[in-house]
Amino acid sequence: MTPYELIKAKRDGRELSAGDVRAFIAGFTAGTIPDYQMSSMCMAVFFRGLSDSELGAWTQAMLESGEVLDLSDISGIKVDKHSTGGVGDKVSLSLAPLAAACGVPVPMISGRGLGHTGGTLDKLESIPGFKVNLSVAEYRKMVREVGACLIGQTQSLAPADKKLYALRDVTGTVESLPLIASSIMSKKLAEGIDALVLDVKVGSGAFMKRLEDARLLARTMIAIGARMGRRVTALITDMDQPLGRTVGNALEVREAVDMLRGQGPSDYAEVTLALTAEMLVIGGKAKDAADARRLMAEAIRTGAAVEKLKEIVRWQGGDPAAIDDDARLPHAKAVEEVRAPSAGYVSGIECEAVGLAAGVLGAGRERVDSVIDPAVGFTLLRKVGDPVQKGEPLLRIHYNDPRRLEDVKARLLSAYRISPEAPARRPLIFERLE
Amino acid sequence: MTPYELIKAKRDGRELSAGDVRAFIAGFTAGTIPDYQMSSMCMAVFFRGLSDSELGAWTQAMLESGEVLDLSDISGIKVDKHSTGGVGDKVSLSLAPLAAACGVPVPMISGRGLGHTGGTLDKLESIPGFKVNLSVAEYRKMVREVGACLIGQTQSLAPADKKLYALRDVTGTVESLPLIASSIMSKKLAEGIDALVLDVKVGSGAFMKRLEDARLLARTMIAIGARMGRRVTALITDMDQPLGRTVGNALEVREAVDMLRGQGPSDYAEVTLALTAEMLVIGGKAKDAADARRLMAEAIRTGAAVEKLKEIVRWQGGDPAAIDDDARLPHAKAVEEVRAPSAGYVSGIECEAVGLAAGVLGAGRERVDSVIDPAVGFTLLRKVGDPVQKGEPLLRIHYNDPRRLEDVKARLLSAYRISPEAPARRPLIFERLE
Repeated sequence: MTPYELIKAKRDGRELSAGDVRAFIAGFTAGTIPDYQMSSMCMAVFFRGLSDSELGAWTQAMLESGEVLDLSDISGIKVDKHSTGGVGDKVSLSLAPLAAACGVPVPMISGRGLGHTGGTLDKLESIPGFKVNLSVAEYRKMVREVGACLIGQTQSLAPADKKLYALRDVTGTVESLPLIASSIMSKKLAEGIDALVLDVKVGSGAFMKRLEDARLLARTMIAIGARMGRRVTALITDMDQPLGRTVGNALEVREAVDMLRGQGPSDYAEVTLALTAEMLVIGGKAKDAADARRLMAEAIRTGAAVEKLKEIVRWQGGDPAAIDDDARLPHAKAVEEVRAPSAGYVSGIECEAVGLAAGVLGAGRERVDSVIDPAVGFTLLRKVGDPVQKGEPLLRIHYNDPRRLEDVKARLLSAYRISPEAPARRPLIFERLE
Repeated sequence: MTPYELIKAKRDGRELSAGDVRAFIAGFTAGTIPDYQMSSMCMAVFFRGLSDSELGAWTQAMLESGEVLDLSDISGIKVDKHSTGGVGDKVSLSLAPLAAACGVPVPMISGRGLGHTGGTLDKLESIPGFKVNLSVAEYRKMVREVGACLIGQTQSLAPADKKLYALRDVTGTVESLPLIASSIMSKKLAEGIDALVLDVKVGSGAFMKRLEDARLLARTMIAIGARMGRRVTALITDMDQPLGRTVGNALEVREAVDMLRGQGPSDYAEVTLALTAEMLVIGGKAKDAADARRLMAEAIRTGAAVEKLKEIVRWQGGDPAAIDDDARLPHAKAVEEVRAPSAGYVSGIECEAVGLAAGVLGAGRERVDSVIDPAVGFTLLRKVGDPVQKGEPLLRIHYNDPRRLEDVKARLLSAYRISPEAPARRPLIFERLE
């Protein structure tokens, strides 16, 4: 079938053959199928969805549009984690060294992406000297010898996805579940992993606002993994308020180090431990979750986990002393507290508003060429469910540019909801799927 | 809202403001909104439709993207007819002179379009010397002095529609009812008409296969007309078999001349008379359909109708003697009969197969630069419902290239269905809407 016939077939709800899907993606990647045909196809997919077979072929074609790393010469089951993203999500910073310290090799390639708060790569770069642009050879060597490596995406992995994502971003076709799932999976499978643990966030601060949507996205990615012969498990976790107590790059690194020392805030620690436990079980290093918990507790107690982080930092050109000596991490010049305007319970913290406020402060990147300020951000002193008296501090703003302070304060005040009664407790981990 | 936000709003089923719709079309016409955004918008419109207000704004914006002719200095109510198209549809050739002979000015601008059989312009060009590329000044002069003019579309009318149609044609978004309706109406309203009569074809050979779809298209165009202050009426007519007894450019001109002399085949004559009657009533020249029938019968009886056709031909550079002297029209070199393979009743003639066969013979244009053979085509000797004996002729092929004959014969034989029993009668005119 011609590209035109394929668009019409999808539009009318007919299933495309795997060969036709592959040819369409290959034509788009090669430039023989123009953007205007791909964008109408994506809009048809938005309305009609993709069958399991179409989705498998779509993902495979994007995966095969570039290099697919082969780490089979490295012993062990290589496992990565992917999060659908949220505010204060620093899980990778602690999960990768913890899993590696427990013997699971973690090849982790992250997109930088745009967003109000920095991504994993931005957080790591707040450690002086830390480099995320390693070669594939260095990446491979680190996975073998250190057990973990955290780098940025290279141009050679899934170029079709890069091209397609840029088009979807301007044609109203980002919010299509099969397109989201195939985008994530094509990038992750190109890393050379054997298995994948998904952290699908749900809540007002997540891409998926409703549990059933998060569940469907998780199931879709698990199904793609199954067709590709990769084991995928997923936890659906809460993103109705920022995770942990920090938002901002260096602040989040500090919190990750605390967590690896057994001192992190309970929500962040619990999500990290639950996801890492999945990796240990799927990676064959623990026979069940309880066994994994024992192994992780041991790695934290002995200091093996934080030592693994220092080893990663050293291998990636960073200053490992910054992990032990907080003064070596960037600090903002000034701190200002935001105080509760009334007494009651914190009944909600709007993630998006907090993220936007962090962006105004300079913690994120609004354009590809924006420069991030690694030092700025927030420390959340009160989280959802906490009681607060009028005038007590809700959070601290770590800032460098006083001209932005009033705007940021106003945004944060409106992000906090204070109610006379304690809100209903919301689970931290909603469910596990595989 | 930005173009991106407008696409998402339409995708999610929200109504766009008239201003936003106009800005989107204007941006596309100017090239500031790229094809890939317009194609995903069109696919979203395919699924979500357009409200009356959106549709009005969309049509208005396309109309206003170019010149809108003003014929208000010409007295009388200017009325055009538009057909959604079919095989053997030569109605314009007889309707325009007949309406003009009865006193209704007919400004008729046709698209050339692609198709297996020629369009109105191709049929007219089979008259030696006939020119369809007149200037706007000549067009205006003819409508005033002759009462009718039949020309091709100029680049200056509704350029947004031309650009959009070309994009829809390759992005699977042609078959959207509001986009079809706005495309037709923007072109027709640019002609300077006061009112419009629609011939919405329904049946296997029509764009609309089902009566309810034809009805919805008619209603949509009538609604656009109402918003623009133009009276629009519609007849839904049959296109389950070719109209009349001829398919092919010069052959159809002959049949149109016959009709204007009161000798045309009954189905073609009836559709022409019904549509022209609408024009006479809407144009204020007849008080009702019966009055219009009397006027038309008189114009045919006195020869005024065929004289008006000759006048049009002369004004447009053609040889009016060709209207009286059939030898002056192109003739194919040879004629071959296709005979019935079995006895029974003709129970169906597949329009599309007949059209494709005419294309193989050279009567149509498959590419923009194809050269049409005006002489070739078919004379249908048996139509649906006619009894036939085995070996009796079903139709005649008028051909110039004997190498194509066997292919064309095979196609025509498979287009005719012969059954032992007479088929149920199908109405010629299904309904009238206004």
